[in-house]
Amino acid sequence: MEIEFIRALRKRLPESPHLAVGPGDDAAVLQPDGSVVTCDLLCDGTHFSLATDSPARIGRKALAVNLSDLAAMAAQPIAAFLAVALPRKKTAIAEQLLDGMLPLAEQFDVALAGGDTNVWDGPLVVSITLIGRCPGKPLLRSGAKPGDHLLVTGSFGGSRLGKHFDFIPRIEEALYLQNHHTLHAGIDCSDGLSLDAARLAEESGCGVALDLASVPTSTAATRMAAEDNTRSPLERALGDGEDFELLLAVPPIAATALIAAQPLAARVTKIGTFIETPGLWQGTDELCPLPVTGFEHQA
Amino acid sequence: MEIEFIRALRKRLPESPHLAVGPGDDAAVLQPDGSVVTCDLLCDGTHFSLATDSPARIGRKALAVNLSDLAAMAAQPIAAFLAVALPRKKTAIAEQLLDGMLPLAEQFDVALAGGDTNVWDGPLVVSITLIGRCPGKPLLRSGAKPGDHLLVTGSFGGSRLGKHFDFIPRIEEALYLQNHHTLHAGIDCSDGLSLDAARLAEESGCGVALDLASVPTSTAATRMAAEDNTRSPLERALGDGEDFELLLAVPPIAATALIAAQPLAARVTKIGTFIETPGLWQGTDELCPLPVTGFEHQA
Repeated sequence: MEIEFIRALRKRLPESPHLAVGPGDDAAVLQPDGSVVTCDLLCDGTHFSLATDSPARIGRKALAVNLSDLAAMAAQPIAAFLAVALPRKKTAIAEQLLDGMLPLAEQFDVALAGGDTNVWDGPLVVSITLIGRCPGKPLLRSGAKPGDHLLVTGSFGGSRLGKHFDFIPRIEEALYLQNHHTLHAGIDCSDGLSLDAARLAEESGCGVALDLASVPTSTAATRMAAEDNTRSPLERALGDGEDFELLLAVPPIAATALIAAQPLAARVTKIGTFIETPGLWQGTDELCPLPVTGFEHQA
Repeated sequence: MEIEFIRALRKRLPESPHLAVGPGDDAAVLQPDGSVVTCDLLCDGTHFSLATDSPARIGRKALAVNLSDLAAMAAQPIAAFLAVALPRKKTAIAEQLLDGMLPLAEQFDVALAGGDTNVWDGPLVVSITLIGRCPGKPLLRSGAKPGDHLLVTGSFGGSRLGKHFDFIPRIEEALYLQNHHTLHAGIDCSDGLSLDAARLAEESGCGVALDLASVPTSTAATRMAAEDNTRSPLERALGDGEDFELLLAVPPIAATALIAAQPLAARVTKIGTFIETPGLWQGTDELCPLPVTGFEHQA
């Protein structure tokens, strides 16, 4: 979805005393109880293809993308609500969606608490709203400061080969890091590393400079680059999206300690530094603008 | 949606300590903070027709049906999350949905707290998840006891003439009654008076006998009955659905006092009595089975 369009809609939503964090972050935070809430709708032909993807994988993904949003808030998931529009004559899909969803819900101790099941003449739509709570402070997009390091979990690019379905949401990693380290800001990488890094900087009122040589590219990015020869592994890492890794703004001393400690099963890598000048940049000493690439279909 | 199908799906959802009230009531109640959550998805061709209904009315309805579910729980709404799939080339619909939604949100002090905006090649889908809290005890479907009176707000039937879009969700009425009277159980009438009365009885492990002469039929039901000549106003009242009135199980003394006091702007009417024998019945002395009529498209 075009970003300007989403912004225009968002501007019409009045502020409310019910909201500690309103629209625009990975999830909203309600007052006064601190419920953290996110919502993602997936539709056939855009986020998956029922012609080629199994309903179980689609169901799993629908829950996983919401879990990834809560990870970006350093929130513990509690309960999910599932609304589906099932194509008439294919209502058995509902069972298969659950086949993919239930094991992931069990893994992260999420109650499937309700929802709405509909049958219609259109293609499959799966919408999940996920509610959680933060054991500590919510991790926002807006807390990065110039000088902070940009750290990422895992590797990037080529998620279309499978990771966009099979990724493990970084809930445990986010909770561990928020509890044991100093994090200033965070976002999950859904729309592309460069786009989500730029968002994190913009929401924090600063810029970010990526050290492109240090960006961890995935083996899938390398494989896709070799196969289609249109984009390099680095270009894929920067723009493919749906990696569902964490991007974190961490103050320098904490960042250095975290990188040295490597406390997670997934590798943590420093790929850049937040700077005062707004925008997305590349380089370590002399900076050049870095074009933003990535999907803009999601709010 | 066929009720047996929904039940089969529901059986697969594991119990969870996160849920004080799980799937099957008008909304779920989370542990330990008591958040009350409901979710309704509306799709073009089933719940509305974009060819004839204005997007503003559709947007209002999408929020209103969720508010009606919270009314049925005697919950105060707090925050709504809106997920939409917009038909490509008709993205301006998003603004118009908000035109209808925002005044209702303001009227009931609901924050529009976030969501997900998507564009696709399918028809319009609007899904809202609404979160609230109960000032008192949640009003469940399962608390009716034999001997309780079945009271209803307002009148029934013919909502297709306009009420299914323009109804005022009975939030204030439900909160007032739950605070000032003794209510044993409640449900909102979305799928038809007879069907929802039967559900209320079934969830409470009893039956209900309607006194058909006392069912308040709406002027719209009378008008539609006169126009199409296929069903009487009473038949319409029992089966049309989307009245979004409250059905309440109230112990006899409290019910008599409530009917005498008429504390609401909407009239409260006694239309039946809960009985030990399961099922839906008609009559006051000698009981005959009453066929259940109504939509079964909603969970």
